[in-house]
Amino acid sequence: MREFELLKIVEELFGKEALDVPAGKHDSAFLRFGKEFLVFTCDTVNELSDFPKFMEPEEFGKMAVAVALSDLAGSGAKPMVFLNSISMKKADEELFRSIMRGIKDWAERFDVRVAGGDIDFSPILTIAGFAVGSANRIITRANAKVGDRLFITAPLGKAQLCLEMLEEGFERQDLPYADRLYTPEPRIKEGLRIAEFANSLTDISDSLAISAHLLSWASNVKVVIEPEKLDLSHLTEYVDKEKALELFLYGGGDYELLFTAEDSHLGIEIGRIEEGSGVFIGRKPVEFRGYAHF
Amino acid sequence: MREFELLKIVEELFGKEALDVPAGKHDSAFLRFGKEFLVFTCDTVNELSDFPKFMEPEEFGKMAVAVALSDLAGSGAKPMVFLNSISMKKADEELFRSIMRGIKDWAERFDVRVAGGDIDFSPILTIAGFAVGSANRIITRANAKVGDRLFITAPLGKAQLCLEMLEEGFERQDLPYADRLYTPEPRIKEGLRIAEFANSLTDISDSLAISAHLLSWASNVKVVIEPEKLDLSHLTEYVDKEKALELFLYGGGDYELLFTAEDSHLGIEIGRIEEGSGVFIGRKPVEFRGYAHF
Repeated sequence: MREFELLKIVEELFGKEALDVPAGKHDSAFLRFGKEFLVFTCDTVNELSDFPKFMEPEEFGKMAVAVALSDLAGSGAKPMVFLNSISMKKADEELFRSIMRGIKDWAERFDVRVAGGDIDFSPILTIAGFAVGSANRIITRANAKVGDRLFITAPLGKAQLCLEMLEEGFERQDLPYADRLYTPEPRIKEGLRIAEFANSLTDISDSLAISAHLLSWASNVKVVIEPEKLDLSHLTEYVDKEKALELFLYGGGDYELLFTAEDSHLGIEIGRIEEGSGVFIGRKPVEFRGYAHF
Repeated sequence: MREFELLKIVEELFGKEALDVPAGKHDSAFLRFGKEFLVFTCDTVNELSDFPKFMEPEEFGKMAVAVALSDLAGSGAKPMVFLNSISMKKADEELFRSIMRGIKDWAERFDVRVAGGDIDFSPILTIAGFAVGSANRIITRANAKVGDRLFITAPLGKAQLCLEMLEEGFERQDLPYADRLYTPEPRIKEGLRIAEFANSLTDISDSLAISAHLLSWASNVKVVIEPEKLDLSHLTEYVDKEKALELFLYGGGDYELLFTAEDSHLGIEIGRIEEGSGVFIGRKPVEFRGYAHF
Protein backbone atom coordinates (compact mmCIF):
# COMPACT_ATOMS: atom_id res chain seq x y z
CA MET A 1 0.00 0.00 0.00
CA ARG A 2 1.13 3.43 -0.91
CA GLU A 3 2.57 5.28 2.04
CA PHE A 4 2.21 2.80 4.86
CA GLU A 5 5.90 1.90 4.90
CA LEU A 6 6.76 5.57 5.08
CA LEU A 7 4.17 6.11 7.80
CA LYS A 8 6.12 3.65 9.95
CA ILE A 9 9.06 6.06 9.78
CA VAL A 10 6.76 8.88 10.88
CA GLU A 11 5.48 6.73 13.75
CA GLU A 12 9.05 5.85 14.78
CA LEU A 13 10.25 9.47 14.73
CA PHE A 14 7.15 11.33 15.86
CA GLY A 15 5.04 8.70 17.66
CA LYS A 16 6.08 10.10 21.03
CA GLU A 17 5.66 13.83 20.42
CA ALA A 18 4.05 15.65 23.33
CA LEU A 19 0.56 15.56 21.90
CA ASP A 20 -2.58 14.02 23.36
CA VAL A 21 -2.96 12.01 20.16
CA PRO A 22 0.26 12.06 18.11
CA ALA A 23 0.77 11.92 14.36
CA GLY A 24 0.19 8.54 12.77
CA LYS A 25 -2.11 7.25 15.50
CA HIS A 26 -5.26 8.61 13.94
CA ASP A 27 -6.67 10.70 11.09
CA SER A 28 -5.73 13.85 13.06
CA ALA A 29 -3.52 14.81 15.99
CA PHE A 30 -5.05 16.18 19.21
CA LEU A 31 -3.48 18.73 21.54
CA ARG A 32 -5.11 20.12 24.66
CA PHE A 33 -5.44 23.91 24.57
CA GLY A 34 -7.22 25.52 27.49
CA LYS A 35 -10.43 23.59 28.14
CA GLU A 36 -10.64 22.06 24.68
CA PHE A 37 -8.56 20.06 22.27
CA LEU A 38 -7.17 21.45 19.07
CA VAL A 39 -7.27 18.92 16.26
CA PHE A 40 -4.79 19.08 13.36
CA THR A 41 -4.65 17.37 10.01
CA CYS A 42 -3.01 17.61 6.63
CA ASP A 43 -4.07 16.02 3.36
CA THR A 44 -2.87 16.49 -0.19
CA VAL A 45 -4.53 16.00 -3.55
CA ASN A 46 -2.91 16.15 -6.96
CA GLU A 47 -3.95 15.91 -10.56
CA LEU A 48 -2.16 12.60 -11.13
CA SER A 49 -3.89 10.66 -8.37
CA ASP A 50 -6.93 12.49 -7.18
CA PHE A 51 -8.66 14.40 -9.95
CA PRO A 52 -10.81 12.12 -12.11
CA LYS A 53 -11.35 12.77 -15.79
CA PHE A 54 -13.80 15.64 -16.49
CA MET A 55 -13.23 17.19 -13.07
CA GLU A 56 -13.66 20.98 -13.10
CA PRO A 57 -11.05 23.30 -11.52
CA GLU A 58 -13.55 24.48 -8.90
CA GLU A 59 -13.93 20.86 -7.89
CA PHE A 60 -10.16 20.56 -7.35
CA GLY A 61 -10.57 23.17 -4.64
CA LYS A 62 -13.65 21.50 -3.16
CA MET A 63 -11.83 18.17 -3.11
CA ALA A 64 -8.88 19.69 -1.24
CA VAL A 65 -11.24 21.03 1.43
CA ALA A 66 -13.24 17.80 1.58
CA VAL A 67 -10.31 15.45 2.17
CA ALA A 68 -8.83 17.59 4.95
CA LEU A 69 -12.19 18.16 6.65
CA SER A 70 -12.99 14.47 6.37
CA ASP A 71 -10.08 13.82 8.75
CA LEU A 72 -11.66 16.27 11.21
CA ALA A 73 -15.03 14.58 10.74
CA GLY A 74 -13.33 11.28 11.54
CA SER A 75 -12.08 12.88 14.76
CA GLY A 76 -15.44 14.29 15.85
CA ALA A 77 -13.98 17.80 15.54
CA LYS A 78 -15.61 21.10 14.63
CA PRO A 79 -13.63 22.74 11.80
CA MET A 80 -12.02 26.07 12.61
CA VAL A 81 -9.60 27.00 9.82
CA PHE A 82 -8.36 25.62 6.51
CA LEU A 83 -5.09 26.57 4.79
CA ASN A 84 -3.75 25.38 1.48
CA SER A 85 -0.53 25.24 -0.41
CA ILE A 86 -0.99 25.10 -4.16
CA SER A 87 1.68 24.04 -6.61
CA MET A 88 0.82 25.01 -10.18
CA LYS A 89 2.59 24.70 -13.51
CA LYS A 90 2.51 28.46 -14.04
CA ALA A 91 0.77 31.55 -12.71
CA ASP A 92 -2.54 30.79 -14.49
CA GLU A 93 -4.94 33.31 -12.99
CA GLU A 94 -8.12 31.73 -14.32
CA LEU A 95 -7.25 28.26 -13.06
CA PHE A 96 -6.13 29.71 -9.74
CA ARG A 97 -9.31 31.72 -9.33
CA SER A 98 -11.48 28.69 -10.09
CA ILE A 99 -9.66 26.54 -7.57
CA MET A 100 -9.94 29.29 -4.94
CA ARG A 101 -13.66 29.66 -5.66
CA GLY A 102 -14.11 25.96 -5.07
CA ILE A 103 -12.21 26.24 -1.80
CA LYS A 104 -14.37 29.19 -0.78
CA ASP A 105 -17.60 27.37 -1.65
CA TRP A 106 -16.75 24.24 0.27
CA ALA A 107 -15.28 26.21 3.18
CA GLU A 108 -18.52 28.19 3.51
CA ARG A 109 -20.63 25.08 3.17
CA PHE A 110 -18.77 23.34 5.98
CA ASP A 111 -18.33 26.45 8.07
CA VAL A 112 -14.54 26.69 8.12
CA ARG A 113 -12.53 29.89 7.67
CA VAL A 114 -9.81 30.04 5.06
CA ALA A 115 -6.78 31.30 6.97
CA GLY A 116 -4.19 31.46 4.25
CA GLY A 117 -2.16 29.64 1.76
CA ASP A 118 0.92 29.53 -0.31
CA ILE A 119 1.59 29.31 -4.03
CA ASP A 120 4.44 27.42 -5.56
CA PHE A 121 5.31 26.02 -8.94
CA SER A 122 5.52 22.39 -10.01
CA PRO A 123 4.72 20.42 -13.16
CA ILE A 124 1.92 18.61 -11.28
CA LEU A 125 -1.00 20.61 -9.95
CA THR A 126 -1.02 19.79 -6.25
CA ILE A 127 -3.09 21.18 -3.37
CA ALA A 128 -1.93 20.45 0.15
CA GLY A 129 -4.72 21.16 2.58
CA PHE A 130 -4.34 21.74 6.27
CA ALA A 131 -7.21 21.95 8.70
CA VAL A 132 -7.51 22.78 12.37
CA GLY A 133 -10.59 22.01 14.41
CA SER A 134 -11.65 21.90 18.02
CA ALA A 135 -13.16 19.10 20.08
CA ASN A 136 -14.40 18.64 23.63
CA ARG A 137 -13.13 15.10 23.88
CA ILE A 138 -10.74 12.75 22.16
CA ILE A 139 -12.26 10.15 19.90
CA THR A 140 -10.06 8.10 17.58
CA ARG A 141 -9.95 4.68 15.94
CA ALA A 142 -8.12 3.31 18.99
CA ASN A 143 -10.93 2.68 21.43
CA ALA A 144 -13.30 0.17 19.81
CA LYS A 145 -14.67 -2.18 22.50
CA VAL A 146 -15.35 -5.89 22.27
CA GLY A 147 -19.11 -6.14 21.92
CA ASP A 148 -19.44 -2.87 20.01
CA ARG A 149 -21.50 -2.81 16.85
CA LEU A 150 -19.87 -1.51 13.66
CA PHE A 151 -21.48 1.31 11.64
CA ILE A 152 -20.94 3.40 8.53
CA THR A 153 -22.63 6.71 7.73
CA ALA A 154 -23.83 5.71 4.23
CA PRO A 155 -23.54 2.96 1.60
CA LEU A 156 -20.03 2.68 0.13
CA GLY A 157 -18.51 2.14 -3.29
CA LYS A 158 -20.34 4.85 -5.23
CA ALA A 159 -17.25 6.97 -5.98
CA GLN A 160 -15.19 3.95 -7.06
CA LEU A 161 -18.02 2.67 -9.27
CA CYS A 162 -18.06 6.00 -11.08
CA LEU A 163 -14.26 6.10 -11.37
CA GLU A 164 -14.24 2.68 -13.00
CA MET A 165 -17.08 3.62 -15.33
CA LEU A 166 -14.97 6.59 -16.47
CA GLU A 167 -12.10 4.21 -17.18
CA GLU A 168 -14.49 2.13 -19.28
CA GLY A 169 -15.26 5.19 -21.41
CA PHE A 170 -18.45 6.55 -19.86
CA GLU A 171 -18.98 10.31 -19.87
CA ARG A 172 -19.53 12.34 -16.72
CA GLN A 173 -23.23 12.76 -17.42
CA ASP A 174 -23.64 8.97 -17.61
CA LEU A 175 -22.35 8.37 -14.10
CA PRO A 176 -24.99 7.38 -11.54
CA TYR A 177 -23.22 9.04 -8.60
CA ALA A 178 -21.12 11.76 -10.19
CA ASP A 179 -21.48 14.06 -7.17
CA ARG A 180 -19.93 11.45 -4.91
CA LEU A 181 -16.88 11.24 -7.15
CA TYR A 182 -16.45 14.93 -8.04
CA THR A 183 -17.70 16.75 -4.97
CA PRO A 184 -17.53 14.50 -1.93
CA GLU A 185 -18.87 16.01 1.28
CA PRO A 186 -17.02 15.58 4.54
CA ARG A 187 -19.35 14.16 7.21
CA ILE A 188 -18.71 16.98 9.68
CA LYS A 189 -22.15 17.18 11.27
CA GLU A 190 -22.38 13.41 11.49
CA GLY A 191 -18.92 13.22 13.07
CA LEU A 192 -19.85 15.74 15.75
CA ARG A 193 -22.98 13.80 16.67
CA ILE A 194 -21.28 10.40 16.55
CA ALA A 195 -18.48 11.69 18.82
CA GLU A 196 -21.05 12.18 21.56
CA PHE A 197 -21.68 8.48 22.06
CA ALA A 198 -19.36 6.29 19.95
CA ASN A 199 -16.30 4.44 21.26
CA SER A 200 -14.26 4.74 18.09
CA LEU A 201 -14.46 6.73 14.89
CA THR A 202 -12.47 7.18 11.69
CA ASP A 203 -13.10 8.34 8.15
CA ILE A 204 -13.12 6.10 5.10
CA SER A 205 -10.96 7.67 2.43
CA ASP A 206 -8.97 4.81 0.91
CA SER A 207 -11.45 1.99 1.52
CA LEU A 208 -13.62 0.38 4.18
CA ALA A 209 -11.05 -2.43 4.28
CA ILE A 210 -8.15 -0.10 5.10
CA SER A 211 -10.10 1.94 7.65
CA ALA A 212 -11.29 -1.27 9.32
CA HIS A 213 -7.73 -2.65 9.46
CA LEU A 214 -6.40 0.57 10.96
CA LEU A 215 -9.21 0.52 13.53
CA SER A 216 -8.52 -3.14 14.32
CA TRP A 217 -4.79 -2.50 14.84
CA ALA A 218 -5.26 0.66 16.85
CA SER A 219 -7.98 -0.83 19.08
CA ASN A 220 -6.44 -4.31 19.25
CA VAL A 221 -9.72 -6.00 18.33
CA LYS A 222 -11.20 -8.17 15.59
CA VAL A 223 -13.53 -6.41 13.17
CA VAL A 224 -16.23 -8.63 11.71
CA ILE A 225 -18.31 -7.32 8.82
CA GLU A 226 -21.60 -9.23 8.56
CA PRO A 227 -22.25 -9.86 4.85
CA GLU A 228 -25.98 -10.40 5.37
CA LYS A 229 -26.19 -6.81 6.65
CA LEU A 230 -24.67 -5.24 3.54
CA ASP A 231 -27.14 -3.64 1.19
CA LEU A 232 -25.41 -3.54 -2.19
CA SER A 233 -28.45 -2.53 -4.23
CA HIS A 234 -26.98 0.91 -5.05
CA LEU A 235 -24.20 -0.99 -6.84
CA THR A 236 -25.90 -4.13 -8.16
CA GLU A 237 -28.01 -1.93 -10.41
CA TYR A 238 -24.79 -1.43 -12.40
CA VAL A 239 -22.46 -4.36 -11.70
CA ASP A 240 -22.76 -7.99 -10.59
CA LYS A 241 -22.87 -8.93 -6.93
CA GLU A 242 -19.25 -9.99 -6.67
CA LYS A 243 -18.02 -6.73 -8.16
CA ALA A 244 -20.43 -4.79 -5.96
CA LEU A 245 -18.93 -6.36 -2.85
CA GLU A 246 -15.43 -5.56 -4.15
CA LEU A 247 -16.41 -1.90 -4.60
CA PHE A 248 -18.07 -1.70 -1.20
CA LEU A 249 -15.07 -3.17 0.65
CA TYR A 250 -12.15 -1.91 -1.36
CA GLY A 251 -13.39 1.19 -3.20
CA GLY A 252 -12.06 4.61 -2.23
CA GLY A 253 -13.24 8.18 -2.35
CA ASP A 254 -16.51 7.97 -0.43
CA TYR A 255 -15.35 9.99 2.59
CA GLU A 256 -17.96 8.43 4.83
CA LEU A 257 -17.30 7.57 8.48
CA LEU A 258 -16.73 4.22 10.17
CA PHE A 259 -17.55 3.98 13.86
CA THR A 260 -18.22 1.57 16.67
CA ALA A 261 -20.63 1.97 19.55
CA GLU A 262 -22.69 -0.20 21.84
CA ASP A 263 -25.61 0.90 19.76
CA SER A 264 -26.43 3.79 17.43
CA HIS A 265 -29.50 5.58 16.16
CA LEU A 266 -27.27 7.00 13.42
CA GLY A 267 -25.70 5.27 10.47
CA ILE A 268 -25.98 1.81 8.98
CA GLU A 269 -24.99 -1.22 11.02
CA ILE A 270 -22.59 -3.50 9.12
CA GLY A 271 -20.92 -5.71 11.72
CA ARG A 272 -19.44 -6.16 15.16
CA ILE A 273 -16.26 -5.97 17.22
CA GLU A 274 -14.88 -9.18 18.74
CA GLU A 275 -11.90 -10.18 20.79
CA GLY A 276 -8.92 -10.99 18.57
CA SER A 277 -7.35 -9.32 15.61
CA GLY A 278 -7.82 -8.83 11.88
CA VAL A 279 -10.74 -7.88 9.70
CA PHE A 280 -13.22 -10.42 8.40
CA ILE A 281 -16.30 -10.51 6.27
CA GLY A 282 -18.16 -13.39 7.85
CA ARG A 283 -15.32 -15.89 8.25
CA LYS A 284 -13.29 -14.70 5.28
CA PRO A 285 -10.32 -12.34 5.86
CA VAL A 286 -10.62 -8.88 4.39
CA GLU A 287 -7.40 -7.81 2.68
CA PHE A 288 -5.50 -4.65 3.54
CA ARG A 289 -5.98 -2.84 0.28
CA GLY A 290 -7.98 -0.08 -1.29
CA TYR A 291 -7.71 2.95 -3.46
CA ALA A 292 -4.05 3.32 -4.39
CA HIS A 293 -2.53 6.73 -5.09
CA PHE A 294 -0.17 5.48 -7.77
CA MET B 1 6.99 39.19 -8.67
CA ARG B 2 6.09 35.58 -8.43
CA GLU B 3 2.76 35.11 -6.75
CA PHE B 4 1.67 38.65 -6.02
CA GLU B 5 -0.91 38.73 -8.82
CA LEU B 6 -2.37 35.51 -7.50
CA LEU B 7 -2.32 36.82 -3.95
CA LYS B 8 -4.67 39.59 -5.08
CA ILE B 9 -7.20 36.90 -5.93
CA VAL B 10 -6.75 35.43 -2.45
CA GLU B 11 -7.24 38.87 -0.93
CA GLU B 12 -10.36 39.44 -3.02
CA LEU B 13 -11.92 36.09 -2.11
CA PHE B 14 -10.72 35.63 1.45
CA GLY B 15 -9.83 39.12 2.65
CA LYS B 16 -13.03 39.32 4.65
CA GLU B 17 -13.04 35.92 6.33
CA ALA B 18 -14.08 36.05 9.97
CA LEU B 19 -10.56 36.10 11.32
CA ASP B 20 -8.88 38.72 13.51
CA VAL B 21 -6.17 38.99 10.88
CA PRO B 22 -7.24 37.37 7.59
CA ALA B 23 -5.16 35.60 4.94
CA GLY B 24 -3.06 37.87 2.76
CA LYS B 25 -2.89 40.71 5.26
CA HIS B 26 0.19 39.41 7.00
CA ASP B 27 2.67 36.53 7.18
CA SER B 28 0.11 34.59 9.25
CA ALA B 29 -3.60 34.70 10.06
CA PHE B 30 -4.78 35.35 13.63
CA LEU B 31 -7.92 33.97 15.22
CA ARG B 32 -8.99 34.56 18.82
CA PHE B 33 -9.41 31.31 20.76
CA GLY B 34 -10.27 31.66 24.43
CA LYS B 35 -7.95 34.23 25.97
CA GLU B 36 -5.29 33.97 23.30
CA PHE B 37 -4.88 34.15 19.56
CA LEU B 38 -4.12 31.17 17.40
CA VAL B 39 -1.76 32.03 14.57
CA PHE B 40 -1.75 30.03 11.32
CA THR B 41 0.62 29.88 8.40
CA CYS B 42 1.54 27.77 5.43
CA ASP B 43 4.75 27.78 3.39
CA THR B 44 6.05 25.46 0.72
CA VAL B 45 9.54 24.60 -0.46
CA ASN B 46 10.51 22.51 -3.48
CA GLU B 47 13.65 21.23 -5.08
CA LEU B 48 13.31 23.45 -8.15
CA SER B 49 13.18 26.76 -6.32
CA ASP B 50 14.31 26.34 -2.77
CA PHE B 51 17.00 23.72 -2.40
CA PRO B 52 20.42 25.10 -3.39
CA LYS B 53 23.08 22.88 -4.95
CA PHE B 54 24.81 20.58 -2.42
CA MET B 55 21.90 20.77 0.01
CA GLU B 56 21.51 17.58 2.07
CA PRO B 57 18.12 15.83 2.43
CA GLU B 58 18.05 16.53 6.18
CA GLU B 59 18.37 20.19 5.30
CA PHE B 60 15.28 19.98 3.05
CA GLY B 61 13.34 19.10 6.19
CA LYS B 62 15.00 21.82 8.26
CA MET B 63 14.24 24.37 5.54
CA ALA B 64 10.56 23.39 5.48
CA VAL B 65 10.32 23.95 9.24
CA ALA B 66 12.33 27.18 9.08
CA VAL B 67 10.22 28.92 6.44
CA ALA B 68 6.93 28.12 8.17
CA LEU B 69 8.22 29.08 11.62
CA SER B 70 9.69 32.27 10.20
CA ASP B 71 6.12 33.39 9.47
CA LEU B 72 5.24 32.75 13.11
CA ALA B 73 8.36 34.64 14.20
CA GLY B 74 7.21 37.53 12.01
CA SER B 75 3.91 37.44 13.92
CA GLY B 76 5.43 37.36 17.39
CA ALA B 77 3.87 33.94 17.95
CA LYS B 78 5.04 30.99 20.00
CA PRO B 79 5.09 27.86 17.80
CA MET B 80 2.74 25.08 18.84
CA VAL B 81 2.56 22.49 16.06
CA PHE B 82 4.05 21.85 12.63
CA LEU B 83 2.58 19.60 9.93
CA ASN B 84 3.93 18.79 6.53
CA SER B 85 2.78 17.39 3.25
CA ILE B 86 5.56 15.81 1.23
CA SER B 87 5.36 15.04 -2.45
CA MET B 88 8.12 12.68 -3.57
CA LYS B 89 9.02 11.01 -6.85
CA LYS B 90 8.72 7.57 -5.32
CA ALA B 91 8.55 5.89 -1.93
CA ASP B 92 12.29 6.33 -1.25
CA GLU B 93 12.63 5.34 2.41
CA GLU B 94 16.14 6.67 2.89
CA LEU B 95 15.34 10.09 1.44
CA PHE B 96 12.09 10.22 3.39
CA ARG B 97 13.81 9.28 6.65
CA SER B 98 16.49 11.94 6.13
CA ILE B 99 13.93 14.65 5.46
CA MET B 100 11.91 13.60 8.50
CA ARG B 101 15.06 13.63 10.66
CA GLY B 102 15.72 17.18 9.53
CA ILE B 103 12.15 18.14 10.40
CA LYS B 104 12.51 16.49 13.82
CA ASP B 105 15.83 18.26 14.50
CA TRP B 106 14.55 21.70 13.62
CA ALA B 107 11.21 21.11 15.36
CA GLU B 108 13.03 20.18 18.58
CA ARG B 109 15.39 23.10 18.26
CA PHE B 110 12.55 25.57 17.92
CA ASP B 111 10.26 23.80 20.37
CA VAL B 112 7.39 22.90 18.07
CA ARG B 113 5.57 19.55 18.04
CA VAL B 114 5.20 17.66 14.79
CA ALA B 115 1.50 16.90 14.57
CA GLY B 116 1.31 14.96 11.35
CA GLY B 117 1.75 14.95 7.69
CA ASP B 118 0.81 13.47 4.42
CA ILE B 119 2.76 11.77 1.67
CA ASP B 120 1.99 12.11 -2.00
CA PHE B 121 3.80 11.55 -5.25
CA SER B 122 5.03 14.10 -7.76
CA PRO B 123 8.03 14.46 -10.06
CA ILE B 124 9.24 17.43 -8.00
CA LEU B 125 10.18 16.92 -4.37
CA THR B 126 7.95 19.38 -2.52
CA ILE B 127 7.37 19.96 1.18
CA ALA B 128 4.37 22.04 2.21
CA GLY B 129 4.72 23.11 5.80
CA PHE B 130 1.93 24.32 8.08
CA ALA B 131 2.49 25.84 11.44
CA VAL B 132 0.20 26.92 14.25
CA GLY B 133 1.30 29.13 17.08
CA SER B 134 -0.21 31.14 19.88
CA ALA B 135 0.12 34.81 20.75
CA ASN B 136 -1.17 37.13 23.47
CA ARG B 137 -1.60 40.05 21.15
CA ILE B 138 -1.81 40.81 17.45
CA ILE B 139 1.26 42.27 15.82
CA THR B 140 1.51 42.51 12.04
CA ARG B 141 3.11 44.64 9.36
CA ALA B 142 0.04 46.91 9.37
CA ASN B 143 0.69 49.14 12.35
CA ALA B 144 3.95 50.99 11.70
CA LYS B 145 3.69 54.53 13.08
CA VAL B 146 5.05 57.76 11.63
CA GLY B 147 8.11 58.53 13.71
CA ASP B 148 8.97 54.87 14.34
CA ARG B 149 12.51 53.73 13.80
CA LEU B 150 13.12 50.77 11.45
CA PHE B 151 15.07 47.71 12.60
CA ILE B 152 16.29 44.35 11.37
CA THR B 153 17.42 41.45 13.54
CA ALA B 154 20.75 40.88 11.73
CA PRO B 155 22.76 41.92 8.67
CA LEU B 156 21.16 40.80 5.40
CA GLY B 157 22.35 39.36 2.11
CA LYS B 158 24.42 36.47 3.41
CA ALA B 159 22.23 33.70 1.98
CA GLN B 160 21.98 35.37 -1.42
CA LEU B 161 25.73 35.98 -1.54
CA CYS B 162 26.29 32.25 -1.01
CA LEU B 163 23.66 31.30 -3.58
CA GLU B 164 25.33 33.46 -6.20
CA MET B 165 28.77 32.09 -5.32
CA LEU B 166 27.40 28.59 -5.95
CA GLU B 167 26.18 29.75 -9.35
CA GLU B 168 29.70 30.99 -10.06
CA GLY B 169 31.07 27.52 -9.38
CA PHE B 170 32.16 27.69 -5.75
CA GLU B 171 31.84 24.57 -3.64
CA ARG B 172 29.82 24.42 -0.44
CA GLN B 173 32.94 24.43 1.73
CA ASP B 174 34.10 27.66 0.08
CA LEU B 175 30.99 29.61 1.07
CA PRO B 176 31.47 32.18 3.82
CA TYR B 177 27.96 31.83 5.24
CA ALA B 178 26.90 28.32 4.22
CA ASP B 179 24.79 27.84 7.37
CA ARG B 180 22.68 30.86 6.48
CA LEU B 181 21.91 29.39 3.07
CA TYR B 182 21.44 25.72 4.00
CA THR B 183 20.06 25.84 7.53
CA PRO B 184 18.40 29.19 8.17
CA GLU B 185 17.04 29.66 11.67
CA PRO B 186 13.64 31.22 12.23
CA ARG B 187 13.92 34.14 14.66
CA ILE B 188 11.32 32.78 17.06
CA LYS B 189 12.81 34.03 20.34
CA GLU B 190 13.55 37.41 18.81
CA GLY B 191 10.00 37.67 17.45
CA LEU B 192 8.49 36.95 20.87
CA ARG B 193 10.61 39.64 22.51
CA ILE B 194 10.04 42.19 19.73
CA ALA B 195 6.27 41.62 19.89
CA GLU B 196 6.32 42.98 23.45
CA PHE B 197 7.17 46.51 22.39
CA ALA B 198 7.22 46.95 18.58
CA ASN B 199 4.46 48.58 16.54
CA SER B 200 4.92 46.43 13.45
CA LEU B 201 6.76 43.24 12.62
CA THR B 202 7.25 40.96 9.61
CA ASP B 203 9.78 38.40 8.44
CA ILE B 204 12.19 38.88 5.55
CA SER B 205 12.01 35.86 3.31
CA ASP B 206 12.05 37.21 -0.24
CA SER B 207 14.04 40.41 0.37
CA LEU B 208 14.23 43.46 2.61
CA ALA B 209 12.79 45.44 -0.32
CA ILE B 210 9.68 43.25 -0.58
CA SER B 211 9.10 43.10 3.18
CA ALA B 212 9.50 46.87 3.42
CA HIS B 213 7.04 47.44 0.56
CA LEU B 214 4.47 45.12 2.13
CA LEU B 215 4.92 46.93 5.45
CA SER B 216 4.59 50.31 3.74
CA TRP B 217 1.35 49.30 1.98
CA ALA B 218 -0.19 47.63 4.98
CA SER B 219 0.67 50.49 7.36
CA ASN B 220 0.08 53.26 4.83
CA VAL B 221 3.42 54.90 5.58
CA LYS B 222 6.69 55.74 3.85
CA VAL B 223 9.65 53.53 4.73
CA VAL B 224 13.03 55.27 4.55
CA ILE B 225 16.18 53.19 4.78
CA GLU B 226 19.14 55.33 5.81
CA PRO B 227 22.13 54.26 3.72
CA GLU B 228 24.66 55.67 6.18
CA LYS B 229 23.31 53.25 8.79
CA LEU B 230 23.89 50.12 6.69
CA ASP B 231 26.94 48.11 7.62
CA LEU B 232 27.82 46.10 4.53
CA SER B 233 31.20 44.85 5.74
CA HIS B 234 30.00 41.23 5.92
CA LEU B 235 29.44 41.48 2.15
CA THR B 236 32.17 43.88 0.97
CA GLU B 237 34.74 41.31 2.03
CA TYR B 238 33.54 39.33 -1.00
CA VAL B 239 31.92 41.75 -3.47
CA ASP B 240 32.13 45.44 -4.33
CA LYS B 241 30.04 48.00 -2.51
CA GLU B 242 27.37 48.34 -5.19
CA LYS B 243 26.80 44.57 -5.33
CA ALA B 244 26.81 44.43 -1.53
CA LEU B 245 23.96 46.96 -1.38
CA GLU B 246 22.06 44.98 -4.03
CA LEU B 247 22.38 41.79 -1.95
CA PHE B 248 21.39 43.58 1.25
CA LEU B 249 18.25 45.12 -0.26
CA TYR B 250 17.14 42.51 -2.75
CA GLY B 251 18.66 39.22 -1.59
CA GLY B 252 16.40 36.48 -0.24
CA GLY B 253 16.69 33.59 2.15
CA ASP B 254 17.92 35.32 5.30
CA TYR B 255 14.74 34.78 7.34
CA GLU B 256 15.52 37.69 9.62
CA LEU B 257 12.84 40.03 10.98
CA LEU B 258 11.95 43.60 10.05
CA PHE B 259 10.22 45.70 12.68
CA THR B 260 9.38 49.24 13.65
CA ALA B 261 9.23 50.72 17.12
CA GLU B 262 9.68 54.07 18.80
CA ASP B 263 12.99 52.70 19.94
CA SER B 264 14.54 49.28 20.43
CA HIS B 265 17.31 47.74 22.50
CA LEU B 266 17.14 44.78 20.09
CA GLY B 267 18.21 44.58 16.48
CA ILE B 268 20.02 46.90 14.14
CA GLU B 269 18.56 50.29 13.28
CA ILE B 270 18.46 50.89 9.52
CA GLY B 271 15.95 53.68 8.96
CA ARG B 272 12.71 55.42 9.87
CA ILE B 273 8.98 55.62 9.15
CA GLU B 274 7.59 58.82 7.64
CA GLU B 275 4.24 60.07 6.47
CA GLY B 276 3.62 59.14 2.84
CA SER B 277 4.05 56.00 0.83
CA GLY B 278 6.71 53.92 -0.86
CA VAL B 279 10.10 52.61 0.15
CA PHE B 280 13.26 54.67 -0.23
CA ILE B 281 16.93 54.34 0.44
CA GLY B 282 17.84 57.90 1.21
CA ARG B 283 15.93 59.70 -1.56
CA LYS B 284 16.12 56.87 -4.07
CA PRO B 285 13.12 54.58 -4.53
CA VAL B 286 13.61 50.94 -3.58
CA GLU B 287 12.12 48.58 -6.16
CA PHE B 288 9.57 45.91 -5.38
CA ARG B 289 11.68 42.89 -6.18
CA GLY B 290 13.66 40.17 -4.53
CA TYR B 291 14.26 36.50 -4.54
CA ALA B 292 12.10 34.98 -7.28
CA HIS B 293 10.80 31.44 -7.04
CA PHE B 294 10.98 30.77 -10.75
